[in-house]
Amino acid sequence: MWRDLLPIGRDADSGGYRRIAWTGADADCRAWFRDQAESRGLAYELDRNGNQWAWLGDPALGNAVVTGSHLDSVPDGGAFDGPLGVVSSFAALDELRARGAEPARPLAVVNFGDEEGARFGLACVGSRLASGQLGAEQAHALRDADGTSLPQAMERAGYDPARIGPDPERLARIGAFVELHLEQGRALAPAGSGSTASSGHPVGVASAIWPHGRWRFDFHGEANHAGTTRIEDRRDPMLTYAATVLAARERAGLAGALATFGKVRVVPGGVNAIASLVRGWLDSRAADEETLAAVVGEIERAAVQRGALDGVDVRITRESFTPVVEFEHGLRDKLAGLLGKDGVPVPVLPTGAGHDAGILSASVPTAMLFVRNPTGVSHSPAETAAEDDCLAGVTALADVLEGLACR
Amino acid sequence: MWRDLLPIGRDADSGGYRRIAWTGADADCRAWFRDQAESRGLAYELDRNGNQWAWLGDPALGNAVVTGSHLDSVPDGGAFDGPLGVVSSFAALDELRARGAEPARPLAVVNFGDEEGARFGLACVGSRLASGQLGAEQAHALRDADGTSLPQAMERAGYDPARIGPDPERLARIGAFVELHLEQGRALAPAGSGSTASSGHPVGVASAIWPHGRWRFDFHGEANHAGTTRIEDRRDPMLTYAATVLAARERAGLAGALATFGKVRVVPGGVNAIASLVRGWLDSRAADEETLAAVVGEIERAAVQRGALDGVDVRITRESFTPVVEFEHGLRDKLAGLLGKDGVPVPVLPTGAGHDAGILSASVPTAMLFVRNPTGVSHSPAETAAEDDCLAGVTALADVLEGLACR
Repeated sequence: MWRDLLPIGRDADSGGYRRIAWTGADADCRAWFRDQAESRGLAYELDRNGNQWAWLGDPALGNAVVTGSHLDSVPDGGAFDGPLGVVSSFAALDELRARGAEPARPLAVVNFGDEEGARFGLACVGSRLASGQLGAEQAHALRDADGTSLPQAMERAGYDPARIGPDPERLARIGAFVELHLEQGRALAPAGSGSTASSGHPVGVASAIWPHGRWRFDFHGEANHAGTTRIEDRRDPMLTYAATVLAARERAGLAGALATFGKVRVVPGGVNAIASLVRGWLDSRAADEETLAAVVGEIERAAVQRGALDGVDVRITRESFTPVVEFEHGLRDKLAGLLGKDGVPVPVLPTGAGHDAGILSASVPTAMLFVRNPTGVSHSPAETAAEDDCLAGVTALADVLEGLACR
Repeated sequence: MWRDLLPIGRDADSGGYRRIAWTGADADCRAWFRDQAESRGLAYELDRNGNQWAWLGDPALGNAVVTGSHLDSVPDGGAFDGPLGVVSSFAALDELRARGAEPARPLAVVNFGDEEGARFGLACVGSRLASGQLGAEQAHALRDADGTSLPQAMERAGYDPARIGPDPERLARIGAFVELHLEQGRALAPAGSGSTASSGHPVGVASAIWPHGRWRFDFHGEANHAGTTRIEDRRDPMLTYAATVLAARERAGLAGALATFGKVRVVPGGVNAIASLVRGWLDSRAADEETLAAVVGEIERAAVQRGALDGVDVRITRESFTPVVEFEHGLRDKLAGLLGKDGVPVPVLPTGAGHDAGILSASVPTAMLFVRNPTGVSHSPAETAAEDDCLAGVTALADVLEGLACR
């Protein structure tokens, strides 16, 4: 099963995956999903928003236990982010059958469309549409870098974009949603373990998704000639940007938060030109909203103070903000109970990354399982997981499905 | 004369000039030059490299005194960089005639093509070709951002690119070349004078063009997820870049040199992605080559040291280097003698910017005059000069031409 999926959308040069929503590689992944469903005798279903479902039992009975994740990737992403959850879901159903477990509730595997948002700039489009967190009108306005709209992209991929929109009946069938995902940090990897996860816990339960936001910092200075303008006559916004990048790292480190500048634009951007404008984007996340606000406030103050020294005007715009997601405590505790063995509790940990589970948690009881990431690398061709840890993830997911859904 | 030139190639939005080589705006500037020559009864000449000449007297006599500059601009450049020298040259000839001066040597005004290098990435193409510092074969290989080659661009503008190449006979006619140019720093503007030049010297004589170079700094880190990678697990090259930007400013300031990062590229460049590669370009200049080498060496060491802390590999490539240009001392001293009045010496000052005069200085005795720049702003729509200072520049250029060429 894993072997069939591995070559799809893989770039020969980087070794990374380019399974971008509604492209040919995405279509191949979707065909793989349908094959997996049908070869197991599961009822295949495509919903109005392009999400794929594979049902064991009658969905109309309601109170279903659903598991799954996504198959699309960021550009040059790794093999595990998304697919590990879908593959593990099918494998966990196989494991339940091998155990002879008898489901008392309907079970389903889901593949949510366009989770990464690599094409249209908005993550979790499939789950946002289904839950009503993204309106059909807003979705119709999404465009990719080439100007292709989401409806056009769906139509070219053979889907009917006229039907996209909220899907409350489908969500109402779900009694619990559990998403298994590769951990994206090293919280489960023992410190100093290097590239192999040799001890500790291979699987953890999610407590929450950290609140996070994006802020655009516009540093306005004065364009000038790099070869003739005296140091004391300069208003160079690159200096203010640089000082802000370092301040962000320092303040986040002190607060146990995360702050990253990974994108920057320079005007005019010539080698021999002092910039008139440097525009940098801050991504920041923290365990709670108060800490996040405090860290970002400190970074903003550091930027403005340095700007005053450099003669640079600093303007800051919050471009997006996602509040904290606390996974339902009842379901979370139930998972922890099912997975804690021999008196050893399973780790319960937060994550800084957004997921379809975070979106769905507003509509249905939702939980997540994380599989250990030995290097912590994610969104990169170097993303990896140990085979034993992946198998432990399948066993844990099967335990959870059996505990929740079977007699 | 000035009034006819001002609207050509001016962008209505920015107020800046876009007189890019071999475009329509450039053609309009060239038509203006020819009109100015012919309306004064000067012999108009177009050389094999697209440089324009206007002769007073017979060029075949040799030992000519030539003045001039360029009419092209950087994108969104100012009105003075280049055109001030050409306009002042024609005005100085008018002044000589008004004085009744009798030239004993041929005089000429020149407009060198493509000085700014805004289109093909190489500055001073016209003077480099004429002096043989740029070979015809290399010139044929130049391409603009749209893939148009220099020969194609020249041909579309109505010029014959088959003839480009060294022009030693033409240069051999020149006994002295004097380029008047707007100063591009505030070396002539009294400190604290703000936007008006109220005192000091309106005109100076160039001593030298600082050596300068461009270095590409490649900071290699590790791509990772900005929302999940712990601070201590990161190898973020943006941090190393930022520290290097600040180190460059500090080291240059201490040494009285210039160091600027005005261009940067980030891979992958996503808001939520820790960069795998940050590539920044350093432009650095100093009064002498030893100082320049010392400053750049210190910046390189600072980058590598910080890189070791960040887990970032730093690779540095020198992309270009131009040695110091010392203008001929005899001609420089002669100009200083002609312009120093009432026992007050004229300022003699270096510049960090390249000029056609710097290229020609390898072939013929060359000097430069600078007109005061009250704000020091250059390569920007805000570039300006006081009318009185421009008139003082014309008078000084006329004095120089009279002193060098007239009985």
